[in-house]
Amino acid sequence: MARINSNYLKLKAGYLFPEIGRRVAAFCAANPDAKVIRLGIGDVTEPLAPAVLTAMHGAVDDMAKHESFRGYGPEQGYDFLRNAIAENDYKSRGADVGADEIFVSDGSKCDSGNILDIFGADNVVAVTDPVYPVYVDTNVMAGHTGPGDDSGRYAGIVYLPATAENDFIPAKPQGKVDLIYLCYPNNPTGTVATRATLQSWVEYAKKNDAIILFDAAYEAYITDPSIPHSIYEIEGARDVAIEFRSFSKTAGFTGVRCAFAVIPKDLTGAAADGKRQAIHPLWNRRHTTKFNGVSYVVQRGAEAVYSPEGREQVKRTIDFYLTNAKLVREGLQKVGIKVYGGVNAPYVWLQTPRGMASWDFFDQLLQKAHLVGTPGSGFGASGEGYFRLSAFNSRANIEEAVARFQKLVG
Amino acid sequence: MARINSNYLKLKAGYLFPEIGRRVAAFCAANPDAKVIRLGIGDVTEPLAPAVLTAMHGAVDDMAKHESFRGYGPEQGYDFLRNAIAENDYKSRGADVGADEIFVSDGSKCDSGNILDIFGADNVVAVTDPVYPVYVDTNVMAGHTGPGDDSGRYAGIVYLPATAENDFIPAKPQGKVDLIYLCYPNNPTGTVATRATLQSWVEYAKKNDAIILFDAAYEAYITDPSIPHSIYEIEGARDVAIEFRSFSKTAGFTGVRCAFAVIPKDLTGAAADGKRQAIHPLWNRRHTTKFNGVSYVVQRGAEAVYSPEGREQVKRTIDFYLTNAKLVREGLQKVGIKVYGGVNAPYVWLQTPRGMASWDFFDQLLQKAHLVGTPGSGFGASGEGYFRLSAFNSRANIEEAVARFQKLVG
Repeated sequence: MARINSNYLKLKAGYLFPEIGRRVAAFCAANPDAKVIRLGIGDVTEPLAPAVLTAMHGAVDDMAKHESFRGYGPEQGYDFLRNAIAENDYKSRGADVGADEIFVSDGSKCDSGNILDIFGADNVVAVTDPVYPVYVDTNVMAGHTGPGDDSGRYAGIVYLPATAENDFIPAKPQGKVDLIYLCYPNNPTGTVATRATLQSWVEYAKKNDAIILFDAAYEAYITDPSIPHSIYEIEGARDVAIEFRSFSKTAGFTGVRCAFAVIPKDLTGAAADGKRQAIHPLWNRRHTTKFNGVSYVVQRGAEAVYSPEGREQVKRTIDFYLTNAKLVREGLQKVGIKVYGGVNAPYVWLQTPRGMASWDFFDQLLQKAHLVGTPGSGFGASGEGYFRLSAFNSRANIEEAVARFQKLVG
Repeated sequence: MARINSNYLKLKAGYLFPEIGRRVAAFCAANPDAKVIRLGIGDVTEPLAPAVLTAMHGAVDDMAKHESFRGYGPEQGYDFLRNAIAENDYKSRGADVGADEIFVSDGSKCDSGNILDIFGADNVVAVTDPVYPVYVDTNVMAGHTGPGDDSGRYAGIVYLPATAENDFIPAKPQGKVDLIYLCYPNNPTGTVATRATLQSWVEYAKKNDAIILFDAAYEAYITDPSIPHSIYEIEGARDVAIEFRSFSKTAGFTGVRCAFAVIPKDLTGAAADGKRQAIHPLWNRRHTTKFNGVSYVVQRGAEAVYSPEGREQVKRTIDFYLTNAKLVREGLQKVGIKVYGGVNAPYVWLQTPRGMASWDFFDQLLQKAHLVGTPGSGFGASGEGYFRLSAFNSRANIEEAVARFQKLVG
């Protein structure tokens, strides 16, 4: 008798964004004339950089000729891309990461979910709260948790609240934890971690023989020069951290699909017999057995992000989104809304007016202002009473959205 | 203390193809002037079809403009591709598969590995032997097996030998099994399953409440009109089978990356409490949580495979490879080698001369004829004494390879 993985039955409702999609679709069906502005899912809207487009066209042309055709590539990614990443994202910032420690993939969502494959089921897992739901849901699926409660919390996971009360800097876990998910610049709160904060996490991990899963998908939005872009800018992090990076928000690749994970060769974990085992060969085995590399055309596009023109063009788009974020921040502040983030991140995190529940505010904003955001409670119990707006949209839509928000709330 | 998944330590040596890669690289380094011909990994060599190239260029252009830019697509794939698949691969052959039962992915290797996520750890798993190593290795990684022995067999897996003695038609399992991996046209033996054989598997699955994981990655190579291309051409298969398909070998997409899995809505498994649960929503949850869809540019390329020109162009390339296979078959038979497959499949499976061990023959072929093939024993204990040659190469290389083979063996 074929048996399913019953852990899936513990999952609460749908994954957050499909649930938003369902509510928006229902509203649009009932109100076909409403001009809905979407600041929800956090999907980019600007076209790809011209340098990326040129590179992708060139790569498609390569596939047209015997002499330049590419079949299976290295599962870990082409050297041309791994070298560009090592040089530009790490070496240039003084972070010690080798090209052969970089595993190119089709998404950070995939990497941050799949990484659990190489870890044991008996690790104690900590997440910040609110948190990117994928970290939690993939642990539920893998059977690392007990059942969930009505707030969306699962037994067995250690939640580290990040709210206005602690300036969105979660306290270290009370007991020992083994795997810690951190995301900076943070999704959803838009807050950043200072060098001192990251240093304290590296120290915690060393002291507790824990591993940090560091999601830096939004590092390109850091405007403050004192904020580290990579955990490996912190001394000692190579022993205790895996880092996830993505081209999705950096270069508008949400529909193109390219990301990477960094697994330092110094990183080890304990096997069942207590012996230390290097993590790098485990992920290499996982990557070569269950993955077949990223499309050649896509990797050529990603490589072009590091060309002089690519860097310039990509930076211009990020500045555009950051100006959007500033308009949202300031527009909401004008009507008395408490806002966070939106300076070193494309997300503005706000407290709902009059302490409304997050989903109630979602529905009100959709029904009355035809605006889509993301309910804070969808990111965790500590997100209740908060709401996320993304800066990914046209300038006209951002301005219109701010005006509608002000009219509704003001 | 962060603990690793110690099941990985049970894995024998490297994954087959990286191991071949290492041996070939060492040979080439020592013999830089040798003109090595690779008939090993089974990677396509012909350029993409012009219709595919045009579609991919068009899709890159879409990404250049606000009005046609695509960000996140549906994780399950765009409707334009799912509809084309349902219509052309299934409806046209009388197989009842809906577009919403098709999950577009970046590879069948990924799908056939990831599918275990949604099944329980307590299923008894059967594989044919020889077998595509990914099926076995991913079960080892997931902890579904005991340790491996020297022949590469793992305790707890049910192996179904397919050798010349049984015409490569494995007997049904003696006891009850829950998950059965079948691959037809078969990798590595190049043999096919008749309608009657597939019917008997569907009956076995129904009787034992088992699920068949049917890998049809090579269906485009079927030349015999009586052979089914899909398990869903068999009455009743919707209740008991998942099917994997790929554009890799069909349309030369090994470096482009596109595939799909079919999960019929009728398919169920048992939960821990004994209740029946539909499999479709589980895979949908897995796919939306741990995957973010295939590159838009790639999906447009895959769609073009189904256009009238695309179909014609792709068929021409497959015919080219099949002629290669015929040349290999006949060339080897001429020097007294027993060969199988190569008629409805791009692989020729041969018995090694004088009963040599597969890896010994691999080394001899590489050292003396500068030819790379795949040792049969790398696919399982019953593959010992066999060897796989792929038909993916230029005509000149195939002819040269056959001549060298004949010289070495003749």
